[in-house]
Amino acid sequence: MNNGELLALFKEKSVRIDAVMEADLAIVESPLLAQIIRHAIFQGGKRIRPLLTLLAASLVGDPPADTARLAISFEYLHAASLLHDDVIDHATLRRGAKTANTLWGMEPVILAGDYLHAHAMALASEVGGPTAMALIGRATAAMVESEFLQMHNAQEILISEEKYFQVLMGKTAALIAAACEAGIGHNQGTAEQRAALRTYGTNLGLAFQIVDDLLDYLGDPAKTGKAVGNDFQEGKMTLPLIKTLARAEAKDREVLVGLLKATPQERSGQQALAHTIIEKYQGFALARTQAESLLAEALAGLAIFGETPAKAPLAGLAHYVLSRDK
Amino acid sequence: MNNGELLALFKEKSVRIDAVMEADLAIVESPLLAQIIRHAIFQGGKRIRPLLTLLAASLVGDPPADTARLAISFEYLHAASLLHDDVIDHATLRRGAKTANTLWGMEPVILAGDYLHAHAMALASEVGGPTAMALIGRATAAMVESEFLQMHNAQEILISEEKYFQVLMGKTAALIAAACEAGIGHNQGTAEQRAALRTYGTNLGLAFQIVDDLLDYLGDPAKTGKAVGNDFQEGKMTLPLIKTLARAEAKDREVLVGLLKATPQERSGQQALAHTIIEKYQGFALARTQAESLLAEALAGLAIFGETPAKAPLAGLAHYVLSRDK
Repeated sequence: MNNGELLALFKEKSVRIDAVMEADLAIVESPLLAQIIRHAIFQGGKRIRPLLTLLAASLVGDPPADTARLAISFEYLHAASLLHDDVIDHATLRRGAKTANTLWGMEPVILAGDYLHAHAMALASEVGGPTAMALIGRATAAMVESEFLQMHNAQEILISEEKYFQVLMGKTAALIAAACEAGIGHNQGTAEQRAALRTYGTNLGLAFQIVDDLLDYLGDPAKTGKAVGNDFQEGKMTLPLIKTLARAEAKDREVLVGLLKATPQERSGQQALAHTIIEKYQGFALARTQAESLLAEALAGLAIFGETPAKAPLAGLAHYVLSRDK
Repeated sequence: MNNGELLALFKEKSVRIDAVMEADLAIVESPLLAQIIRHAIFQGGKRIRPLLTLLAASLVGDPPADTARLAISFEYLHAASLLHDDVIDHATLRRGAKTANTLWGMEPVILAGDYLHAHAMALASEVGGPTAMALIGRATAAMVESEFLQMHNAQEILISEEKYFQVLMGKTAALIAAACEAGIGHNQGTAEQRAALRTYGTNLGLAFQIVDDLLDYLGDPAKTGKAVGNDFQEGKMTLPLIKTLARAEAKDREVLVGLLKATPQERSGQQALAHTIIEKYQGFALARTQAESLLAEALAGLAIFGETPAKAPLAGLAHYVLSRDK
């Protein structure tokens, strides 16, 4: 399945997902609350999480009709966490549009996030029962714990690879893994099948984030819509830099550590120097190799399913994550 | 059961509730997250909601051993909503102590509220299953909807009695009613028994809030710990004022409406005038009568249970709500 076919399939499924959300959100009473939630949900977004729930469920046969309603609960949880993230970061733009907190202020946006959060969990419980709820409970706890870990890490100059992956696990991978596992669980998947989907989702989430880190250094701003070198300028340690620091000779290491201790203004002029040192120790290539091996492991786990039609898009998605340029 | 016996019983049960929360919260990993949650939970609080869950469950026989774990989910939900409320209101004090947002800032407190919220729902699902989750889903949605209704109402000078009760339903009564209904539901209560507890909880919550409104005008600051007349000074329409405006002659009505349109500074000097007009039309007495009849209806509904030991504290609590002076 090539990227074009994959995107066409995803487009088709995401139209259906959006229709299910449209119908479901009719229960919101307050006009302002409905407006904020619609802004959070329908202002872009790739629907990766609900797509994964649907595809995972399809691996073991036609999924129950209500699987789409279970699937959207993962999009809601994602949207709820973005609403609160943007309040916390005082973010003004997301997906090229003004953030909800910019448009309506902090108060209604915190509350709208709470609503979406509670509604997602109630929906997941109604459709997916205790199995889905246990998965979501663990994933949301992991998301918050990782934010606290990240706050704690932000006080340190140097972050180990282990801590880097610990944050990624909670921040991105836990919810994606839960979306995958809940999908196959909802179609009576066995413990072995569930474990395979958990690995697939976890590794896909980790690889996605590593590629994000690479694009921050190497991406084309015209495609990514973001300036190059944001992470480095903010003093944020991501995998290319972590790999480099672990291998660099003393003097190169000192240069990098010195830059990380400097102010953002001082760092912004030294972007090219950092880039050169990371290249010298193959920091980018090593990070990419790690993303590749995570995805290879994810796909190897799917071997237990034989050749079902839902497998091609899951494999395609893994390749897409590696090849994406935005 | 007199107030003294009642408070002794509640003290005994709340010690047990606190112990269950202590044990449960050991799962929190981040030290800062644990600190914020402990501050939110153990810095005071009357444990009304979990007490009601336990008492409601006891109405139909000895409750299952895990009822206390279901009960604490309601305290968590309450605490989570207070954490977010205090962030939204930039509140600096609660229960005589610095608020969490004052101590640790907005970011970790929004996240801690999210954690507690998600954990409460996962716990309720695990212990109480889909029945408890459906109740909690509806109650949390009602809580947020009522906040939006209140924001909307704040743009208007005059609020109808209907809108006043609509806000109260979501703000206080919905979660208390859910705590009661979940308790008896968890001990295999019938649909009729569940409905009786829903009415009890709803009416108790409404009456509690009406008495709160009365104390704002009539309370002794030395006991309530709050200045008299806060609500009026903020231009907030509560039941005594609503009842008065519905009955007042044109000229008295004009005086009150004029004050409500004035600035808080102008209103603060006219507290005594407003008080006199409310007295003249029996606004306080009418509000109290309504609280009394709500509680009478709550207690009448409990008649179906015969004379079980759990009934006395539920009746006692209704009387306590009416007689409280703080």
